[in-house]
Amino acid sequence: MCKAYFDYASTTPVDPEVAAAMMPFLHEKFGDASSPHSLGQEAKKALEDARECLANFIGAKAEEIIFNSGATESNNHAVIGVARAHKAKGKHIIVSSIEHHSVLEPVEYLKDHEGYEVTYIKPDGDGCIDPEDIKRAITKKTILIAVMYASNEIGTIQPVAKIGAIAKEHQVPFLVDAVQAVGHVPVDVNGLNAGLLSLSAHKFYGPKGVGALYVRKGTELASLILGGDQERGRRASTQNIAGVVGLVRAIELCGQKMTEEIEVQTRLRDRLLSEVPKRITGVKVNGHLSRRLPNNAHFSFDQVQGESLLMSLDLAGIAASMGSACTSGALEPSHVLRAIGLSDEAAHGVLRVTLGRWTTQEEVEALLQKLSKIVKSLRI
Amino acid sequence: MCKAYFDYASTTPVDPEVAAAMMPFLHEKFGDASSPHSLGQEAKKALEDARECLANFIGAKAEEIIFNSGATESNNHAVIGVARAHKAKGKHIIVSSIEHHSVLEPVEYLKDHEGYEVTYIKPDGDGCIDPEDIKRAITKKTILIAVMYASNEIGTIQPVAKIGAIAKEHQVPFLVDAVQAVGHVPVDVNGLNAGLLSLSAHKFYGPKGVGALYVRKGTELASLILGGDQERGRRASTQNIAGVVGLVRAIELCGQKMTEEIEVQTRLRDRLLSEVPKRITGVKVNGHLSRRLPNNAHFSFDQVQGESLLMSLDLAGIAASMGSACTSGALEPSHVLRAIGLSDEAAHGVLRVTLGRWTTQEEVEALLQKLSKIVKSLRI
Repeated sequence: MCKAYFDYASTTPVDPEVAAAMMPFLHEKFGDASSPHSLGQEAKKALEDARECLANFIGAKAEEIIFNSGATESNNHAVIGVARAHKAKGKHIIVSSIEHHSVLEPVEYLKDHEGYEVTYIKPDGDGCIDPEDIKRAITKKTILIAVMYASNEIGTIQPVAKIGAIAKEHQVPFLVDAVQAVGHVPVDVNGLNAGLLSLSAHKFYGPKGVGALYVRKGTELASLILGGDQERGRRASTQNIAGVVGLVRAIELCGQKMTEEIEVQTRLRDRLLSEVPKRITGVKVNGHLSRRLPNNAHFSFDQVQGESLLMSLDLAGIAASMGSACTSGALEPSHVLRAIGLSDEAAHGVLRVTLGRWTTQEEVEALLQKLSKIVKSLRI
Repeated sequence: MCKAYFDYASTTPVDPEVAAAMMPFLHEKFGDASSPHSLGQEAKKALEDARECLANFIGAKAEEIIFNSGATESNNHAVIGVARAHKAKGKHIIVSSIEHHSVLEPVEYLKDHEGYEVTYIKPDGDGCIDPEDIKRAITKKTILIAVMYASNEIGTIQPVAKIGAIAKEHQVPFLVDAVQAVGHVPVDVNGLNAGLLSLSAHKFYGPKGVGALYVRKGTELASLILGGDQERGRRASTQNIAGVVGLVRAIELCGQKMTEEIEVQTRLRDRLLSEVPKRITGVKVNGHLSRRLPNNAHFSFDQVQGESLLMSLDLAGIAASMGSACTSGALEPSHVLRAIGLSDEAAHGVLRVTLGRWTTQEEVEALLQKLSKIVKSLRI
């Protein structure tokens, strides 16, 4: 049984207030938002109110929000959709080498199958992308720049506003994968000059299976899923009203609690970042120390297998992660850890600890105690 | 306020038992099925149990089920995925002209942008596709045959088993869009010789935003959404466990109730099909009279605007539809009604009445009474 959850970056529990907001839209207000009758219109109103609310939260207009099944779809849609819509202009894409696979894989698909050219921008040792590197890579054929807001693995926050300003100056659509940021730190599409921005409800105490893609008015985008007029013809499928209502209730709660949550989590995170290297030898903190998500701590331990560490922690009632859950089953070392210069061996001995709404000081202290013991026992 | 709901083919309320089954997976058992810790493994077990259960229900193997965001995604994935995986063999697709837009639009995309050739098979006046027409259209370059199980508009059930046998004989993957059938009539992928089959939870008292694509072992399929190992690498994205659990609880309930529901709905439907033309002049029943979904009745009324009829019914507390909700906002007459030979004028004067789990005899009688009055008043 899990007694302490330190894997909030993988997924979060649905806040009970969010679940309560969703309930009426399952059995009672169950209409299809495309139906012209009252029940359908009731659903449509809920959908459009939600759209307005999410738009306000990120500084967008309602018509710039496409609701969908989550951030993986958002990133696929953004990459493929921008490429398809802009291929007459050119076929050059600039992408950080530490993007999530849901950005990198569609980019690789375009490279391998549709003749696109890709420039991968490498980060420094802290995982930071240099905006000047982006600037230098832009050509007349560049049709997309993609740099994530913050790393899902090592927590480093990128200079996205600076990159956005460069993208704007060169009139290149800028995709910000903000999956780890939205709901956790203030995100404003205008400050970022984002042309597209991805988010997912289950990363901020909303339900799984629902997310959104922000698309700035004027940014041309082909559809990924065809066959209906929903979402202004940009994403066919009967809308998931309960899910969307949940997403937006979740974002409202995050808005109300954000200042406090940032403060609490930053304090607990900093305790982890400073205490772990004090109590355990052969530890390295990965990611930037200050330009970092409030809830992320990421370590590599000499002479420790990450899988064994996770299993021992799990047996001790602590749920944590090695990094992206999407690749945690894989034997390949993380592309992010390789990019910041970790050896394959070091990349296998990592631990990602991510905090959230229900993390307590007591849990952090228990983690510190148990982690020391377990690392020592694994090194014998 | 809606007093009587006759639009079950657009969407259904989530059965309260389904909602109850979903609840624990929102806040309590909220793990990411890709996470190696206990919470993740608990989620994974729920996911795999659900996969097994759905597979059993349609005669499939668990590994042949891809959970996703719904039938629109399923149909897009099937069409695009089969085309991409088989393009070395050929670029010819056979499709009924009355498929849902979520099949037709990806097919048109392939035709317009990737050089695929498409043969559209027309139905007869009852909306039936002749398997011989399919057989004649097959060439050595044919890589996909797509014929829906039953029409979402006029309810006609296609001779899918015969078409499947022909597809099997010619070794061409056969896509069955079974969105209107699964949960309502027995569907078995082996009896159908389906290579691929689409279904959506919200059509059978499950939640919106979750569905599945069946893919027969050996049927090659490229991915539509990239960037993670979920669903055996065929559909990246954190799985929507609560949604999947809901889908499967819904299918179990449908299995338990199916015999009775078919009997009750067929009786009520037949009363509508026989009474409406008795009570109202200038009425035509559309779709096949017996090879028809148990819950579908579809009429065209001379000298009546469908939109006005729907609005008047809505004011009288009755929710119905003109056909596919996805195009109900459109001014274009339905491609299905055109294909069965209705004039544009007749196609605008239609009403689709679809029954479901909570439809009562009293509601049907009230509909018959009100419909007569309203049609008369609209014709003045």
